[in-house]
Amino acid sequence: MSAGGGLARTPAPPYFAVIFTSKRAADDGRAYGVVAQRMVDLGSRYDGFLGIESARGDDGLGITVSYWRDEASLLAWKRDTEHEKAQRGGREAWYDAYEVRVAKVERAYGFARDAAG
Amino acid sequence: MSAGGGLARTPAPPYFAVIFTSKRAADDGRAYGVVAQRMVDLGSRYDGFLGIESARGDDGLGITVSYWRDEASLLAWKRDTEHEKAQRGGREAWYDAYEVRVAKVERAYGFARDAAG
Repeated sequence: MSAGGGLARTPAPPYFAVIFTSKRAADDGRAYGVVAQRMVDLGSRYDGFLGIESARGDDGLGITVSYWRDEASLLAWKRDTEHEKAQRGGREAWYDAYEVRVAKVERAYGFARDAAG
Repeated sequence: MSAGGGLARTPAPPYFAVIFTSKRAADDGRAYGVVAQRMVDLGSRYDGFLGIESARGDDGLGITVSYWRDEASLLAWKRDTEHEKAQRGGREAWYDAYEVRVAKVERAYGFARDAAG
């Protein structure tokens, strides 16, 4: 469930982050993986999408953070018909629990090792 | 690198989130694991700490989100002497790249499966 599998290249703040933390339920995982990747592909085509980062550990806890230009764009994606169907699937089968937090990114800083170093 | 390994139980917004996304460098990982757990233990004792969630996938990408009552508390932790030393270790050895985003959580909602269901 990643779009490239690395750090998102976001612009200078302010912008919005949707922090989606989830605990997977016991499941065969095949349908989940297909739908999760489809949601990344579909969401990233929405106007205002800035990037996505995703990680899931061996304990089943996953964190996906998607970044958005403004609230209107993240709300449009939330209400996407296919995304709403996936959200129902999440509640009915794939997750034991999840939390969604909508946050405004106020500042950001980072580090990247010199490739020549 | 988790404090319980589950979803954080945060209060009603507003509160702050520090989204720390990192790409691990090749490393034996032993010192890293000890320091990472120590940082969780130490940070969670700071006034204003509300919770932490952490996941790292097989591709080396990790996301840790810590939650804070206000900016003063997250800044106090950022400037902790032992934490600053760990941040240097991160740049010198443990990470190829990371990004820190400080965000204000404006709303939150979640789902938890009925344990009796």
